Amino acid sequence: MEGAEATRIMIGVNESTIKGYPHASISSRGAFDWALQKIVRSNTSGFKLLFLHVQVPDEDGFDDMDSLYASPQDFKNMKYRDRTRGLHLLEYFVNRCHEIGVACEAWIKMGDPKEVICHEVKRVQPDLLVVGSRGLGPFQRVFVGTVSEFCQKHAECPVISIKRRADETPQDPVDD
Amino acid sequence: MEGAEATRIMIGVNESTIKGYPHASISSRGAFDWALQKIVRSNTSGFKLLFLHVQVPDEDGFDDMDSLYASPQDFKNMKYRDRTRGLHLLEYFVNRCHEIGVACEAWIKMGDPKEVICHEVKRVQPDLLVVGSRGLGPFQRVFVGTVSEFCQKHAECPVISIKRRADETPQDPVDD
Repeated sequence: MEGAEATRIMIGVNESTIKGYPHASISSRGAFDWALQKIVRSNTSGFKLLFLHVQVPDEDGFDDMDSLYASPQDFKNMKYRDRTRGLHLLEYFVNRCHEIGVACEAWIKMGDPKEVICHEVKRVQPDLLVVGSRGLGPFQRVFVGTVSEFCQKHAECPVISIKRRADETPQDPVDD
Repeated sequence: MEGAEATRIMIGVNESTIKGYPHASISSRGAFDWALQKIVRSNTSGFKLLFLHVQVPDEDGFDDMDSLYASPQDFKNMKYRDRTRGLHLLEYFVNRCHEIGVACEAWIKMGDPKEVICHEVKRVQPDLLVVGSRGLGPFQRVFVGTVSEFCQKHAECPVISIKRRADETPQDPVDD
């Protein structure tokens, strides 16, 4: 096992639904901290972390109702802004890896998070995918969907879903 | 992360359906090898492996139809025999850990594997549960049930399900 290629762990990360960009969601940070504390531990040279942030083009259409678009440039600006915010989100994880001394890569894709994550797993072939999960009950899940359940079924690599700690769960568990 | 308590990984192991005791199933060995190669790596002091083997009392009743029980001793002998075989199964994993230098514990429980595993997770509180999976399709799953899916839903810790490699899958995928 000495000298083997680093174990490549892909971590899906998203922004906080409470604080928005560039803040990472509670479950993203939880998944990252868990991977560091329980898997990487002191063996920083044995692992490489791959951070994937998937941006939802316009999550449910409501955002657009408050916006006025007068030119193609307006759309360009919007996309550029979201992309920039996504970069700041990734910066948090890349900086922490740099401090700790773990190799990492980070990138942004647009689309439906659950499908894009599975597609990227196929393309990048990590050894392991770690996703945070809000740990919602069946009733809440119907409305918000769960990326982690979908990935556990469809991703072509082993998947760990990390639930938030009870003391980190916001008043409304749908928040993150 | 230095000097932290070892990460405790529970691994559910069972006997081969083809070779029987004391041979470990393909998916049990796969789950173990995966945990060593991808998680433990060279950091042998950072992890402790907990092997749980659950024995099914009489899997579907058919075994008993070929047996004649004349005294309470007959039952005792049978249970003792199975327990002994289970011990030899665990011996394989404990020996390999000893060779590599990873701390481990191993024990046997009787009952329905999926329920006993979840119960033991609750009792022992590992950081991670690793279970092998045959990777069966939906049609095959109906008849054999899947321990890994049940554990992913119900175990009170993060769960990784490790599928067998395609080149290790027997002709009949229900075999293991």
